[in-house]
Amino acid sequence: MTRSDGRRPDQLRPVTITRNWLAHAEGSVLVEFGATKVLCAATVEAGNVPRWRKGSGLGWVTAEYAMLPRATGTRSERESVKGKIGGRTHEISRLIGRALRACVDFKVMGENSIIIDCDVLQADGGTRTAAITGAFVALADAVAWMRANEVCLGDPLVNSVSAVSVGIVGSEPLLDLCYEEDVVAETDMNVVMTGAGAFVEVQGTAEGAPFGRDQLNALLDLATAGCAELARIQAEALGRDLPGSGA
Amino acid sequence: MTRSDGRRPDQLRPVTITRNWLAHAEGSVLVEFGATKVLCAATVEAGNVPRWRKGSGLGWVTAEYAMLPRATGTRSERESVKGKIGGRTHEISRLIGRALRACVDFKVMGENSIIIDCDVLQADGGTRTAAITGAFVALADAVAWMRANEVCLGDPLVNSVSAVSVGIVGSEPLLDLCYEEDVVAETDMNVVMTGAGAFVEVQGTAEGAPFGRDQLNALLDLATAGCAELARIQAEALGRDLPGSGA
Amino acid sequence: MTRSDGRRPDQLRPVTITRNWLAHAEGSVLVEFGATKVLCAATVEAGNVPRWRKGSGLGWVTAEYAMLPRATGTRSERESVKGKIGGRTHEISRLIGRALRACVDFKVMGENSIIIDCDVLQADGGTRTAAITGAFVALADAVAWMRANEVCLGDPLVNSVSAVSVGIVGSEPLLDLCYEEDVVAETDMNVVMTGAGAFVEVQGTAEGAPFGRDQLNALLDLATAGCAELARIQAEALGRDLPGSGA
Amino acid sequence: MTRSDGRRPDQLRPVTITRNWLAHAEGSVLVEFGATKVLCAATVEAGNVPRWRKGSGLGWVTAEYAMLPRATGTRSERESVKGKIGGRTHEISRLIGRALRACVDFKVMGENSIIIDCDVLQADGGTRTAAITGAFVALADAVAWMRANEVCLGDPLVNSVSAVSVGIVGSEPLLDLCYEEDVVAETDMNVVMTGAGAFVEVQGTAEGAPFGRDQLNALLDLATAGCAELARIQAEALGRDLPGSGA
Amino acid sequence: MTRSDGRRPDQLRPVTITRNWLAHAEGSVLVEFGATKVLCAATVEAGNVPRWRKGSGLGWVTAEYAMLPRATGTRSERESVKGKIGGRTHEISRLIGRALRACVDFKVMGENSIIIDCDVLQADGGTRTAAITGAFVALADAVAWMRANEVCLGDPLVNSVSAVSVGIVGSEPLLDLCYEEDVVAETDMNVVMTGAGAFVEVQGTAEGAPFGRDQLNALLDLATAGCAELARIQAEALGRDLPGSGA
Amino acid sequence: MTRSDGRRPDQLRPVTITRNWLAHAEGSVLVEFGATKVLCAATVEAGNVPRWRKGSGLGWVTAEYAMLPRATGTRSERESVKGKIGGRTHEISRLIGRALRACVDFKVMGENSIIIDCDVLQADGGTRTAAITGAFVALADAVAWMRANEVCLGDPLVNSVSAVSVGIVGSEPLLDLCYEEDVVAETDMNVVMTGAGAFVEVQGTAEGAPFGRDQLNALLDLATAGCAELARIQAEALGRDLPGSGA
Repeated sequence: MTRSDGRRPDQLRPVTITRNWLAHAEGSVLVEFGATKVLCAATVEAGNVPRWRKGSGLGWVTAEYAMLPRATGTRSERESVKGKIGGRTHEISRLIGRALRACVDFKVMGENSIIIDCDVLQADGGTRTAAITGAFVALADAVAWMRANEVCLGDPLVNSVSAVSVGIVGSEPLLDLCYEEDVVAETDMNVVMTGAGAFVEVQGTAEGAPFGRDQLNALLDLATAGCAELARIQAEALGRDLPGSGA
Repeated sequence: MTRSDGRRPDQLRPVTITRNWLAHAEGSVLVEFGATKVLCAATVEAGNVPRWRKGSGLGWVTAEYAMLPRATGTRSERESVKGKIGGRTHEISRLIGRALRACVDFKVMGENSIIIDCDVLQADGGTRTAAITGAFVALADAVAWMRANEVCLGDPLVNSVSAVSVGIVGSEPLLDLCYEEDVVAETDMNVVMTGAGAFVEVQGTAEGAPFGRDQLNALLDLATAGCAELARIQAEALGRDLPGSGA
Repeated sequence: MTRSDGRRPDQLRPVTITRNWLAHAEGSVLVEFGATKVLCAATVEAGNVPRWRKGSGLGWVTAEYAMLPRATGTRSERESVKGKIGGRTHEISRLIGRALRACVDFKVMGENSIIIDCDVLQADGGTRTAAITGAFVALADAVAWMRANEVCLGDPLVNSVSAVSVGIVGSEPLLDLCYEEDVVAETDMNVVMTGAGAFVEVQGTAEGAPFGRDQLNALLDLATAGCAELARIQAEALGRDLPGSGA
Repeated sequence: MTRSDGRRPDQLRPVTITRNWLAHAEGSVLVEFGATKVLCAATVEAGNVPRWRKGSGLGWVTAEYAMLPRATGTRSERESVKGKIGGRTHEISRLIGRALRACVDFKVMGENSIIIDCDVLQADGGTRTAAITGAFVALADAVAWMRANEVCLGDPLVNSVSAVSVGIVGSEPLLDLCYEEDVVAETDMNVVMTGAGAFVEVQGTAEGAPFGRDQLNALLDLATAGCAELARIQAEALGRDLPGSGA
Repeated sequence: MTRSDGRRPDQLRPVTITRNWLAHAEGSVLVEFGATKVLCAATVEAGNVPRWRKGSGLGWVTAEYAMLPRATGTRSERESVKGKIGGRTHEISRLIGRALRACVDFKVMGENSIIIDCDVLQADGGTRTAAITGAFVALADAVAWMRANEVCLGDPLVNSVSAVSVGIVGSEPLLDLCYEEDVVAETDMNVVMTGAGAFVEVQGTAEGAPFGRDQLNALLDLATAGCAELARIQAEALGRDLPGSGA
Repeated sequence: MTRSDGRRPDQLRPVTITRNWLAHAEGSVLVEFGATKVLCAATVEAGNVPRWRKGSGLGWVTAEYAMLPRATGTRSERESVKGKIGGRTHEISRLIGRALRACVDFKVMGENSIIIDCDVLQADGGTRTAAITGAFVALADAVAWMRANEVCLGDPLVNSVSAVSVGIVGSEPLLDLCYEEDVVAETDMNVVMTGAGAFVEVQGTAEGAPFGRDQLNALLDLATAGCAELARIQAEALGRDLPGSGA
């Protein structure tokens, strides 16, 4: 089977990671998975943590995900205009935050925060996995900034994360679904893994028929390979080995 | 290893499903997983579907999850008072809705809606999985009501779902975590399965260290057995074979 | 005249008060007036009072009333989903709070708060009066907890309250209206009284024709007898004389 | 006993009702009870009723109460800025609406609405009772406008209402409390009566000690006389007998 | 050309400024530009400034503008009921605040705030310019109050402001548009000037055809004369020379 | 005087207009004024207009302006998270909408809408004027799309608009302020002009000392020249003469 864009089932879309896309942010990345473009901006808040964390000596990392209204084929109303954040936005913001927190030793980080804003400029499937993959690089740059500015002394980055979507389309397991594939997938799974190949998050959903253990295994195999390739691209973009990769 | 409440690692808490707990709802269930108590109320809205579904001839099933303020050890502020729904509430409501929709043939259901309200009266871990397990039974009763009242003619229920949490605590995989176990789990996974043993949703998160493929497999094994036992309890509560179970 | 459920005009519905319905709350009661079921949970916040009360040495008691969406014959939208609390909810929460505060010596209570959550699980008329009657018992248990835990030293409970609805249906004054009677009542009155028989709150509204002084007097007579009977049931549930009852 | 402003216990403050205070509204009144000033503006919405009333052939009357931020001694934040309406505002708006609806035959009114906006320009106690008393006159003018413009044919006004506060201050029952008296009252009651002397609403609250039946009776006597005097002032302002007054 | 109300093109409507309209506010003015009536209430918050200004030694002045629902020919929904403030309200509140801040030396004022509430009781065009013109007088009275009460020692008022609208109607430049003129104006401009004749704010908008430099100049000439006349009326109302006027 | 970035007082920053920056939108432009980057996306809603415009035969154009959280030197909280839109956002959205509507003949456009989303990716002063200048080009592309797809038949574009900021810094009038200049400007003015050199909007504010007529004239001269240059750049980007330019 050939995919609509000519890829093999186990092939990622072209992935590019452009660092320092913004002038002001302590770390910023424009990440592209094919036509999906997400701008990831990391803000360091030195000496500031959420109220429930004050006095703990521990840092915090959080993320906010959003889409520009016309990132998609039809315009969606702004959540600021609606006056509330939708369930999907909440869910993805929480997912990105959890993934990034798996990379950080909060004791070494000290009572400082990093907020990663992931704004989807253009969407073509896989926005959350592109966001996580790009956000890690922005996080790494923000951590480097903290160390250069002596906001924290040691290296709080202990792991890296990348993420990819996999799914079953017409009974075939595919890696890194584009929007056209995503809407017809029977099963859709997002997998977040460390650079060392361990799982941070597995979220699989039967959109059509429920799936068996064999299909689940096939999807996990695809995702494992895809995340490894993404980790390689992240390392290349950063120009150094990823933390926790054992390299 | 013995668990704090004396269970074996692969043992569910005592599960009870009380049907017709409410007088008004078309289906209602009080489901208990140990000390976790969730009231599931199914409302049939005959002839009504969301706007984007009107004229399609298809039905709809949705769910809303919430916790009473003092369901937990410390009181949490009401979301109605805060004026907005939190990310966790959104996320769980969406999860329950997806799980239930996996059970329904919307063409047979016709342009009618069922809303399942899952209100946690008391929380001791596993509220979302208890909610799904109970909500399915309330859904089945609401569907029976629809058929008895000729709101729909055929049987739209094509599958059943139950759900259970699994996790790794002190390196050991455990089934159906109570709150005390949940807060110390390194990995936490919620699994939704059909009565026939296929996956509808798998959501695993590394709370502490990332997890390997072997651990993932051990958790999936535990969840598969747990969901099968829950399906048996659902069938017993309903007094009949579950749809799609091949029985 | 016989009422739809066979009661005499001056007869309460069967009233049950189940204490300790919840595991976590410092006081909790499931109160039932016929088919009306309200869960009252009292939370003690030791050392915490609203901002405007800090430093005063005085305590505070407040209440929040809400209905589950399917407590009623047709489902009502959640106020958390609407993003705001309706006028009726506000009004009843304020009424319950005022009633409970009439029972407390805030100086003896010290700078501590008690919040009573009254969640209607099932509604069949008289939810606010059932809530007040049950909430007092939950309050008494929470106060006992405070004393046992030495959060406050003396006994801050100086009065008890119970409440009942009365109304004129088909020209006849009736005690404790069920929903069916409530919707056709010409006049509807809620009365909150102490165990010693004094008035804490009287709220009467002409739903149909305005009412005369004689009718008002007949309703007050019914309510006085009804509240006395409810006070007796409260004392029985608590297993002791009510504060301020002179017993 | 002499009151702070020299009044007798059973004496109203000077009451003035200025009709046609606004150019645009179909009825408008500036009502003053001493230093309390409320602007009541009636808007006729011909051919429009709330959705749940459409097709019924019946009209509707509703009210909205609000205070300007500096109506009071210290400035209060705007509810529009807070983004939500407080419980007190909700409660009073609902009270005014109920009181006015007691005056109207909705069948004669036809499917038309009247909205009465009661904005407190200056507050010195009794704002809700002044609002009801003034709003009735604005309603009467709006109804006259409807008849003059043939929006409705017969006369839908079947009753009049006025309202007054009464309370117990230092053990003495007083009529029409000013702010200074209101804050120290042990019991506070608002009474709405028709021009013919029947009760539309009675709302009494023990702010300090609970009150007995005798005190309740004394307050009702005061209120009855006060409302009768207010009805006389309303009739004078309108230059005609009040509807339902039997005159 | 004669205008609908008989004025010359360069003629203001009758302007009246009534000081001390409210009992509680530190400064209050009812300002009328023809049928437009705005109530301006100044509140002094001694020792309080916005958070971002604390510790600066500097004061702050801000304004809030709003319209009563029936200030206009057709009723508009309350912003408190809608739960949010509209763009027009925001914009005008900000404009009034900026205009008033141009009058104040914040160092002399010290860390104190003044809030000016401008509530439109009746609207007939020019509500924002009437509000600014009246608000200045309320501000001057509030400042006098501060000095009399030794909240600040020196005189922080260094300028005065007044404002007027100008516009092009049927190709003719007109001063101080009423509503009837405003809705048909091709160009609409609001001009805020000091008593000494300098510009504080110029906001011109082409509602129909874009306008040329000549038309802009003609409008500025009209506004300059109009503001000078308004400054004279302000001085008369205050009974003294305006600050910064060089008199 | 030389400016911080070496420009002459009457010199624009480098301006680039990149068309078709997004794949989905009917018109899209990335506009850059120096380091200020705004993404303008035009959405055509064929056959749809706001409710108050339905049945009029007339079209509508509106705009929404927003900033990404880290467009600026310090991160600002998302308006979607705050649950409301701020005054500045409202004001600028309204300004852009008015400017664009000055370009369109709504009768020729027919009952169709265009929404222009202007999202600031990076801010360095002049975001609103860059937005207007870019939004016009996106609008022109969206109109071309409408004509190509026969959504409207004639050409509804009758004017072009561009916009620039001017201000007085250290007594000197400057064109196109960057952020560093903007924060110290005594007077700040935004001017919107047609390609033919007429004014659509003039908004000048004294941030420090009020300004005289001479200064106003000097600023208008600068703006007139700046807008003409921007119109030239727009024409170049579009590859054709601007509508209404008389060319």
